[in-house]
Amino acid sequence: MTLLFEENTRAELRAFAPQALVVLPVGATEQHGPHLPVGTDRFTAEYVARAAAELASDQIPVLVAPTLPFGSSQHHLPFGGTLSLGTETYYRVLCDLCESLITSGFRRIFILNGHGGNNELIQLAVRDMAFKHDAQLAAAAYWTIAWDALVAEGAHKHAGLPGHAGAFESSLVLALRPDLVREPRPHRDNPPDTDTRNFNAPYRAEQHGAWQRMNGYTDSPDQADAERGQRYLEAIVQAVAAALIEFYG
Amino acid sequence: MTLLFEENTRAELRAFAPQALVVLPVGATEQHGPHLPVGTDRFTAEYVARAAAELASDQIPVLVAPTLPFGSSQHHLPFGGTLSLGTETYYRVLCDLCESLITSGFRRIFILNGHGGNNELIQLAVRDMAFKHDAQLAAAAYWTIAWDALVAEGAHKHAGLPGHAGAFESSLVLALRPDLVREPRPHRDNPPDTDTRNFNAPYRAEQHGAWQRMNGYTDSPDQADAERGQRYLEAIVQAVAAALIEFYG
Amino acid sequence: MTLLFEENTRAELRAFAPQALVVLPVGATEQHGPHLPVGTDRFTAEYVARAAAELASDQIPVLVAPTLPFGSSQHHLPFGGTLSLGTETYYRVLCDLCESLITSGFRRIFILNGHGGNNELIQLAVRDMAFKHDAQLAAAAYWTIAWDALVAEGAHKHAGLPGHAGAFESSLVLALRPDLVREPRPHRDNPPDTDTRNFNAPYRAEQHGAWQRMNGYTDSPDQADAERGQRYLEAIVQAVAAALIEFYG
Amino acid sequence: MTLLFEENTRAELRAFAPQALVVLPVGATEQHGPHLPVGTDRFTAEYVARAAAELASDQIPVLVAPTLPFGSSQHHLPFGGTLSLGTETYYRVLCDLCESLITSGFRRIFILNGHGGNNELIQLAVRDMAFKHDAQLAAAAYWTIAWDALVAEGAHKHAGLPGHAGAFESSLVLALRPDLVREPRPHRDNPPDTDTRNFNAPYRAEQHGAWQRMNGYTDSPDQADAERGQRYLEAIVQAVAAALIEFYG
Amino acid sequence: MTLLFEENTRAELRAFAPQALVVLPVGATEQHGPHLPVGTDRFTAEYVARAAAELASDQIPVLVAPTLPFGSSQHHLPFGGTLSLGTETYYRVLCDLCESLITSGFRRIFILNGHGGNNELIQLAVRDMAFKHDAQLAAAAYWTIAWDALVAEGAHKHAGLPGHAGAFESSLVLALRPDLVREPRPHRDNPPDTDTRNFNAPYRAEQHGAWQRMNGYTDSPDQADAERGQRYLEAIVQAVAAALIEFYG
Amino acid sequence: MTLLFEENTRAELRAFAPQALVVLPVGATEQHGPHLPVGTDRFTAEYVARAAAELASDQIPVLVAPTLPFGSSQHHLPFGGTLSLGTETYYRVLCDLCESLITSGFRRIFILNGHGGNNELIQLAVRDMAFKHDAQLAAAAYWTIAWDALVAEGAHKHAGLPGHAGAFESSLVLALRPDLVREPRPHRDNPPDTDTRNFNAPYRAEQHGAWQRMNGYTDSPDQADAERGQRYLEAIVQAVAAALIEFYG
Repeated sequence: MTLLFEENTRAELRAFAPQALVVLPVGATEQHGPHLPVGTDRFTAEYVARAAAELASDQIPVLVAPTLPFGSSQHHLPFGGTLSLGTETYYRVLCDLCESLITSGFRRIFILNGHGGNNELIQLAVRDMAFKHDAQLAAAAYWTIAWDALVAEGAHKHAGLPGHAGAFESSLVLALRPDLVREPRPHRDNPPDTDTRNFNAPYRAEQHGAWQRMNGYTDSPDQADAERGQRYLEAIVQAVAAALIEFYG
Repeated sequence: MTLLFEENTRAELRAFAPQALVVLPVGATEQHGPHLPVGTDRFTAEYVARAAAELASDQIPVLVAPTLPFGSSQHHLPFGGTLSLGTETYYRVLCDLCESLITSGFRRIFILNGHGGNNELIQLAVRDMAFKHDAQLAAAAYWTIAWDALVAEGAHKHAGLPGHAGAFESSLVLALRPDLVREPRPHRDNPPDTDTRNFNAPYRAEQHGAWQRMNGYTDSPDQADAERGQRYLEAIVQAVAAALIEFYG
Repeated sequence: MTLLFEENTRAELRAFAPQALVVLPVGATEQHGPHLPVGTDRFTAEYVARAAAELASDQIPVLVAPTLPFGSSQHHLPFGGTLSLGTETYYRVLCDLCESLITSGFRRIFILNGHGGNNELIQLAVRDMAFKHDAQLAAAAYWTIAWDALVAEGAHKHAGLPGHAGAFESSLVLALRPDLVREPRPHRDNPPDTDTRNFNAPYRAEQHGAWQRMNGYTDSPDQADAERGQRYLEAIVQAVAAALIEFYG
Repeated sequence: MTLLFEENTRAELRAFAPQALVVLPVGATEQHGPHLPVGTDRFTAEYVARAAAELASDQIPVLVAPTLPFGSSQHHLPFGGTLSLGTETYYRVLCDLCESLITSGFRRIFILNGHGGNNELIQLAVRDMAFKHDAQLAAAAYWTIAWDALVAEGAHKHAGLPGHAGAFESSLVLALRPDLVREPRPHRDNPPDTDTRNFNAPYRAEQHGAWQRMNGYTDSPDQADAERGQRYLEAIVQAVAAALIEFYG
Repeated sequence: MTLLFEENTRAELRAFAPQALVVLPVGATEQHGPHLPVGTDRFTAEYVARAAAELASDQIPVLVAPTLPFGSSQHHLPFGGTLSLGTETYYRVLCDLCESLITSGFRRIFILNGHGGNNELIQLAVRDMAFKHDAQLAAAAYWTIAWDALVAEGAHKHAGLPGHAGAFESSLVLALRPDLVREPRPHRDNPPDTDTRNFNAPYRAEQHGAWQRMNGYTDSPDQADAERGQRYLEAIVQAVAAALIEFYG
Repeated sequence: MTLLFEENTRAELRAFAPQALVVLPVGATEQHGPHLPVGTDRFTAEYVARAAAELASDQIPVLVAPTLPFGSSQHHLPFGGTLSLGTETYYRVLCDLCESLITSGFRRIFILNGHGGNNELIQLAVRDMAFKHDAQLAAAAYWTIAWDALVAEGAHKHAGLPGHAGAFESSLVLALRPDLVREPRPHRDNPPDTDTRNFNAPYRAEQHGAWQRMNGYTDSPDQADAERGQRYLEAIVQAVAAALIEFYG
């Protein structure tokens, strides 16, 4: 067996399926401000999924499926450079993939997400598939899994956590693919204070055109730093590996 | 104008639409343990929506649409007594209703939710409608809006917040509709400690059959109390009214 | 047991399901001329369903599900004040609700309709569900069930039966919710003669913009009368109760 | 121009479209008892559409589209020999065809139906298309158009009107395609009395398995008669031609 | 038994189903240049299906279903005179029809196509139905089945094979329905050379507006000839009959 | 600009869009016999797309989108190790991706396919998108583009071209990822002779269970050879690059 699902044969996968955990990384191809590549969410999701699975593989049988490189990103289409699946299409894609895995004998699936816009749909998919099939499924973005560790690293200071194309994500790309970050990165004077978790907002509010008004990125990307990005990645990989092991049970 | 959308005429609604906020309460009809009526989530959503809108109406123009009494409750079907819309149906219902409001001239919509299983779908609907149409929309369950106030009341002590059919929801129904709570309510020795917000779990895990294994309710319903239920409701109504006013902007 | 589905617990509903008849009231939230509230069809459907079930409950085990307050009302959207589900959405909603009831053990379902635009879709739903599942289902608008009694009361004289927001419906709302009827009600000189049943028209003809040309109401609402409305309601409730009992078999 | 849509060229159809009425015959391919061919509803719909259009063409510009030979016949599938479109498929087919005609410049469409199971869906299609597009559409089964004439001929005496594969339809096929009627036709002692219109039933009731229990046909097919069938057809063609002219306006 | 599915009764079809092959002809109603009727693809598909089945019936049990007269022709809508089913509708129609046949006991289905735009969808339908159900299905356009024979007849010389409304199709209609060909037929100086099969193009290229730029027909229709059309038809019928027998196995 | 879509920023992509060609590689994750990895079709499609675009980039502005690693592979699900999108899901995914590109300003799209089961759906997608939008699109599997060159190399001798997991595909993987080919590869005595193009079969025949009966691979994989695989790849890349340039126009 190799860690990557696609490198194995059908017989290896059939034999491994009953006891294995499959990690399905889901990213996006979407605008990430003037400075980051549109593949940002795919690079991070794929990197984290593989590194965390590698780490976890000492303790649990685990495979990483091919990354779904397209996400639910309709709201980024007006900026160009965005490849998005519609809400209903994306839900069906996730269900088809989970049902394929279950038909292939797998009983444990973890959808690891790198794009905020996918968060609700991955949760619906794992809820509905676990109701319909005799299997257990989990779903989360890497930053919710690693929240406490990231806060301990100060990733939330004067930055969105995760934000979008802000200091946090920019730090990750500076660590992962520094060649792809365009300089100078934009600056904003007053990055929003996100010392508390932004998904604890008391309600979800959506304004037409809001993304355009903030030019497609949050907080101040020029505050990003490759070295901090490296520490964040390490914290994320540790936390995700621990979550995979915990979920495996 | 009266507060209830359905009591107004078309002309009144047309005139009111450009500046009004419409609250759309969404509930569920689903099993709520051996002791609570299946309409629990509809009773609470409708009560909170109307009382909060009433309160907010001193400061903002507001209307309450008819409650959608059916939610996304597939996971409760095996218990009987459950009327559920499928995931894709429910998404389309929410979009059709929001688009009807927008076509009718409304520009501010707040989906107020009383059932956990609806949470992802209401968020997707408001996100997608605000992207597609020139309008602003919000969505949340009443307990996330009122979280801080409920924690201040101790609603999370030795109880799920909100849980399902546990001490918290049972307290609300004891306050709202005591005639509908069957006694004795079930007891569990070790209610899970939920001093921290359960939606801060690092990942969403779904096990096939998990609801059956906990017999369709969380924590210990016999810990519910009408007087506390009344205090919770008051806190919720205050918080939701404040959120409506804040969102109105 | 109480008559209202939502007031019962799952255990009560499970025990009652095999022998009970469930009435599912379906209404609409749509423009009803300059004088009637947009909730008209929901008020009437809900009132009739509950009163008729109450009456029938002496002879048969019966429950009333929560009213679906939104109907198939696309053609009323241009007037404002209308919340409509699309044709395909509405069909799926009805099927999901019927399948939920059947999954919950019910074998007898009666969809009681208060809005003309729902008539074809409720018939398709009961036809398709009775073909697919081992259950018996019925569907009708209250005025077709009570047709003979209403004609005996003269409800069809110089009025549409039912028409839309005309003398007949206005009489019902004057009886049920007189506070919600705006005066003066509009007058038309020549209400169409509907001594014969309008659904006996030899063919269904639909003109683009036809509803706008008649300003969204039929015949002459100023001919409505609260006392006649009361008599109509009584006749309707009697006839619907008898139909429920007959269908129960 | 020839009467049949499919025999014309695109230029002829484009030129004719603004003022022409298009009749779209819709039938079914489904079991018709032990004695009638499964194409019965298609034969009758196509014959009536063409003969009535021919007759009407003296007064109005009219075309007959190709017959849709498949209907909404799920309930006949258990008997074999049935080709059915699902409810949602059939609705989409009708909408696609009507929108094609409207895109091609036509503004008047009449769906002429030969199968009871299509009745609700053709009505929904014409309603929805007339709302969405600037066009006028009509829909009906040939027997509802010709009801009064058929009753004058006594077609409803001791027979379903139309029933299914009973004396009425059998008479039509004996007149149209006597070679396709298998003898002896079945007999039933007590054909239901249908002196009144069966679509005036106060409610629609559907029992699982009901079609099987009456062996897939109504009343007593051995009461059919070719000569009466011929008279029925003449009455139908006259009535449908008159309806086409009336609808043309 | 008669050859035409629709002329048989349910009992005959049930008895015949296990060993019979059903041919389902699929055509189109769409613009065919300035000179050919819009029913061209339906006339040819229906003629070929019936003649070939007649020929094959000496050796195998075979039935011909009613022709689906509407195809996947969105690209012809701008010319007028076109009745098209959307891509997703058409796929569902084919699946519903195949599943109806399989439910009715048939195990061998051959979709015989007369319109290029249907080619991908008929292949998807037979692939998916054969995967899902225990049955064998085939699909092809008549010209691919008869390719070698047509090339032997020179049908590809200075003409599209099949092209659209060009010399080849025009020859077929001149043979089948000469009354429906409008003269003079258009001329083009340089008909494309199609000595090799056009479906061997290395890739499928689609240009927006391409059909309009060639005025909705290929090559030079004035090169068509009734006598050659007759020879083509004979070659096609022979080849299709042989294919039916071969597929029957 | 870099060749890979995902490595660019939104501004670079916006600026490049009007004149650029986007290649969208589509593969599959599906069983490939006992010896090849399930990612075979994704490895080949991605390799060819990138190498051909690199080569073509000397002459035309070109980008390679992220590979869609999941295809239409329902028929391989019974073997395990397969992740498939349903037919309707896959069609929608392709349309969503093409519409995203068109919304982002691109006007030239080439879907490059590595899996036979995708062939019909990619053609439908490019046809429908080019009809709906002002853009030009192309689609093909790499082996149809390179057919003549592959035949010149003898790739069709005693092997399926492309076959499935047979000598041809095995040769490609031996060249690309020799570490992933499991030895010994299976042998068959009589590989089918495919000296002629298999997509020139006169009709498409599908037998239920056919893939299982040939154990999920065609011809004789032990005849594969890394050196020939390398020559095939070179021929393919050359041919695809030439096709991209030709299509660019």
